[in-house]
Amino acid sequence: MSLLTVGSVAFDAIETPYGKTDKIVGGAGTFISLASSYFVDRQNIISVVGDDFPKDTIKDLNSRGINTLGLQVKEGEKTFFWSGKYHNDMNSRDTLITELNVLENFDPVVPNDYQDSDYVMLGNLSPLVQSTVIERLKNRPKLIAMDTMNFWMDIAMNDLTKTISMVDLLIINDEEARQLSGEYSLIKAAQIIRDMGPKILIIKKGEHGALLFVNDDVFYAPALPLEEVFDPTGAGDTFAGGFMGYIASTHDLSFENLKRAVIYGSAMASFCVEKFGTQRLLELDKEEISNRVNQFVKLANFDMNLLVK
Amino acid sequence: MSLLTVGSVAFDAIETPYGKTDKIVGGAGTFISLASSYFVDRQNIISVVGDDFPKDTIKDLNSRGINTLGLQVKEGEKTFFWSGKYHNDMNSRDTLITELNVLENFDPVVPNDYQDSDYVMLGNLSPLVQSTVIERLKNRPKLIAMDTMNFWMDIAMNDLTKTISMVDLLIINDEEARQLSGEYSLIKAAQIIRDMGPKILIIKKGEHGALLFVNDDVFYAPALPLEEVFDPTGAGDTFAGGFMGYIASTHDLSFENLKRAVIYGSAMASFCVEKFGTQRLLELDKEEISNRVNQFVKLANFDMNLLVK
Repeated sequence: MSLLTVGSVAFDAIETPYGKTDKIVGGAGTFISLASSYFVDRQNIISVVGDDFPKDTIKDLNSRGINTLGLQVKEGEKTFFWSGKYHNDMNSRDTLITELNVLENFDPVVPNDYQDSDYVMLGNLSPLVQSTVIERLKNRPKLIAMDTMNFWMDIAMNDLTKTISMVDLLIINDEEARQLSGEYSLIKAAQIIRDMGPKILIIKKGEHGALLFVNDDVFYAPALPLEEVFDPTGAGDTFAGGFMGYIASTHDLSFENLKRAVIYGSAMASFCVEKFGTQRLLELDKEEISNRVNQFVKLANFDMNLLVK
Repeated sequence: MSLLTVGSVAFDAIETPYGKTDKIVGGAGTFISLASSYFVDRQNIISVVGDDFPKDTIKDLNSRGINTLGLQVKEGEKTFFWSGKYHNDMNSRDTLITELNVLENFDPVVPNDYQDSDYVMLGNLSPLVQSTVIERLKNRPKLIAMDTMNFWMDIAMNDLTKTISMVDLLIINDEEARQLSGEYSLIKAAQIIRDMGPKILIIKKGEHGALLFVNDDVFYAPALPLEEVFDPTGAGDTFAGGFMGYIASTHDLSFENLKRAVIYGSAMASFCVEKFGTQRLLELDKEEISNRVNQFVKLANFDMNLLVK
């Protein structure tokens, strides 16, 4: 089934305790579509770049089955650029530079070829851009998922709650869930957020795994304990890409299958952090992904049958 | 099989965002032995109290199968007292009062009746007291487990590393594991700590669950997402008590069974935080515990068989 990704295609410059990059290719849309490309053969992306964006990278996306008809290239304008520096614990970072550039007045175009998209992943972007894409889709997709961040809660809460009310699945982190709901307890936060619209909620907790809420059911997915996190940039987007790619490829929205999708998303995210930027997401193969998923099975599996009397 | 618990039997005064207690009964030894009493019919405790400690509480321990022959009552002295106030997030607290009293010169006595103890749980205490108990046991138990805290790393690191080298299992939290090893990555920390002696390591992560390390295997146990944590005091000790009680009752040190023990420990800890002090640990029954364990199964269980090709 077809997947449509909406999200930034951008430049990042990253500094971590392990090293430093010049401008490299990043952006939520890039990470999401690369991660999901291991699950779906064809997918669509909506985004915008300037004429400084390398044509070869667009060809790389195409060669991974990503249709870039909806990727606008703005002549005479510059691509979105973000630069950040991670602290030693890798859990917090300082933003050094944010140049919105082409994102400032981004008007997302939905090509006719994209109108049959069954699954939609709205990466972190202005909630107005996210809702505009939904409104420009002629048919309601089977599942619309979205990411967002604290920034939009601070400056565009009305737009954000409107967009949240339009989607089926919200994927955010624990800090964002607490800010959005005003509740510290994630169980209480989850209820409040689902009352805002999304039937399904995923709360990512970084190195502590992720929680999936569907109806009265909760699933706690572990994160793989890693020796080193080399660069966390894009891990959350990669999780979303793995999750949605898996859902689009299996076309099954049961709780059991949503749990499997969370594990696939977590596995993809665990690869992402091993090198700078999108590097790992360009070199994986299906066997490597299966092996990693098996590590999650081994990590989280236990058998209580003998003992629950 | 018999379990020996060494740990403080004490008074606590606790303030949380939900309320405040006068002096109530607490202490690592109390929480551990009460939690394990749901798994083993007979167990032994080594501890010390003053003559201000209520005789009825000692009778309560006895009625739960806890042999208090090794619980010294010091005439004319006062019981250990700790008072603390939890912050709104419940993850951090300020210590308001610490009165060591009888713990200051605690010389642990191992009654002859205790010499056949198969399993030993050394609750958080001075590492010198912990190692003294080990030295006073005539036969090596099948498994010696210990807890400790940052305080002993700060003031008695030599004693602590000696004691750690004498035990089979160390149970500490993530912050303590990082301080003890000097490594932020818990995977690296786990290797360094196991090189210090213990074959088995459990790193508790509070609301984020627990990691069990045995040989090359890692198990990630979830924590039950709770609507409210009413009082976290004693949760770590209760985890240890549930874990060791389960191990002593099943007498099986395989990785699979250690995983089950972690789940039972987590289940017991999830009860502990529901009310002040030891209250919940005095009123449970086996069915309630089985139901709680089943919640963990439901929370963490997923089935990948269909999809790992």
